Amino acid sequence: MFGTVAIIGMGLIGGSMAKALKKAKVVRQIIAIDADKNALNQALELGVIDAVADWEALRTVDIIILAVPVGAVFEVCRKLAAQPLKPSVVITDVGSTKASVLSAFEQAYGTVPAYFVPAHPIAGREKSGVSAACAELFQHRKVIITPLEQTDDRALGVVCRLWHTTGAFISQMPPQTHDEILGATSHLPHVLAYLLVDMLESDLHHEAIFSYAAGGFRDFTRIASSSPVMWRDICINNREVLLELLATYRQRVDAFETILHQHDTAAIEAVFQRAKAARDAHFEQD
Amino acid sequence: MFGTVAIIGMGLIGGSMAKALKKAKVVRQIIAIDADKNALNQALELGVIDAVADWEALRTVDIIILAVPVGAVFEVCRKLAAQPLKPSVVITDVGSTKASVLSAFEQAYGTVPAYFVPAHPIAGREKSGVSAACAELFQHRKVIITPLEQTDDRALGVVCRLWHTTGAFISQMPPQTHDEILGATSHLPHVLAYLLVDMLESDLHHEAIFSYAAGGFRDFTRIASSSPVMWRDICINNREVLLELLATYRQRVDAFETILHQHDTAAIEAVFQRAKAARDAHFEQD
Repeated sequence: MFGTVAIIGMGLIGGSMAKALKKAKVVRQIIAIDADKNALNQALELGVIDAVADWEALRTVDIIILAVPVGAVFEVCRKLAAQPLKPSVVITDVGSTKASVLSAFEQAYGTVPAYFVPAHPIAGREKSGVSAACAELFQHRKVIITPLEQTDDRALGVVCRLWHTTGAFISQMPPQTHDEILGATSHLPHVLAYLLVDMLESDLHHEAIFSYAAGGFRDFTRIASSSPVMWRDICINNREVLLELLATYRQRVDAFETILHQHDTAAIEAVFQRAKAARDAHFEQD
Repeated sequence: MFGTVAIIGMGLIGGSMAKALKKAKVVRQIIAIDADKNALNQALELGVIDAVADWEALRTVDIIILAVPVGAVFEVCRKLAAQPLKPSVVITDVGSTKASVLSAFEQAYGTVPAYFVPAHPIAGREKSGVSAACAELFQHRKVIITPLEQTDDRALGVVCRLWHTTGAFISQMPPQTHDEILGATSHLPHVLAYLLVDMLESDLHHEAIFSYAAGGFRDFTRIASSSPVMWRDICINNREVLLELLATYRQRVDAFETILHQHDTAAIEAVFQRAKAARDAHFEQD
């Protein structure tokens, strides 16, 4: 039993957390805070949460889950730091960038509190908002936990059990490693997809260009339909890692232009073969 | 009725053409040529074709469909040009790059024959080979026909009816326009996906990097599981267009690095918003 859980941010992830915890019957009560009153009303109506809370109410809760977009974490930390909390409280989050979340806590608290356990569930849907929340969203998905040296063992244990309850697989790694891996497998691809669609729309003057796009293009650009504001904030919050990845990628495009210009069929095929082998090894069925 | 149809190249596309035409009962006989005897035997066993042919047999056929990968078109054209054919013969192809196919005909014949109608069905599957062939592959898909000024009207009409029979929608445009549109919506994305997977595999030293990839990455890189040899040949055969697109894209990456470096949140959001709006407008449901 996790006692009373407060979720700050009642969107897809916060709502799905609430539903998963309720379904597992491991919480006494779930209360929520959100700047968007509609989201809270919807969550109440849908039975996702038990009550709407104010910041004052955090005084008595056992677990606080920050489920706001990374762009809002700093402001939430500032408010949180001003609140008296239970001495036994455990705080966790779901942010897509970990160094920036830790830095927000450091700025708000002076030092990252030992009872804060950073976490990031690698799960999502094209749809957003609490109406898309789903108790099974984290089932068999990975959640990465990035504790610091000062992180309290009990807090870490509580957060591990919390995620275990949702059906997720738990990985642990340093925040910087998380940001590099997610930068490469998530943030960079999102930027590349956005850039391609924007280029086709803006630069090329074929009116019906997208109407000739096949399934491959549709799949390739699906992530370019993600929330621009959320991804703007993720880019900004993982800026250093992403800048390095973009530079590396740009050099790879440049190198490919060279081998294509030189008509170097062997080198072109080698790139494609390596990529296909790597991808097929990891995604067996497609 | 299209009389006797010869298909050169018994892979996914050639096999699907054969199946679609047979299903519609619009051909007297379908014969096939392929350097790969196994593919021909398989096609015979599956009832996809009526007989295996040699080049000599082309003398009496009414329609010849070149369904070989673009890398093999030049060699096939050379052999074709050495064959006596019916005066009323119509030749068409399915190549992904049109300027290079036309240039192959020009080199083999001296000039592009009036009875050759270039075509490209925008359809495919992850699987390849005649065993994956499917009579419905072209249903409700686009086929682009790129006739030249000298193209014979009757030949054009026959090829239009041929594709209509398969259930495809027919578009017509100049070869260069085709190569630019497909370069942007298909060839460029394939290269970008291959480059990303190769970069993650080769440059980054996180052993389990792909195991943290979510559905977005899987979709984004699906096309990197395509045939390396086929895509090497497509790149080579649309080299000039692709080089220009790659340079433009590389400049877009560069420009994005600048706005990210400058922390220009408004500019970042503007790129993402434009891309999302363009994509959502064209792919309503996802």
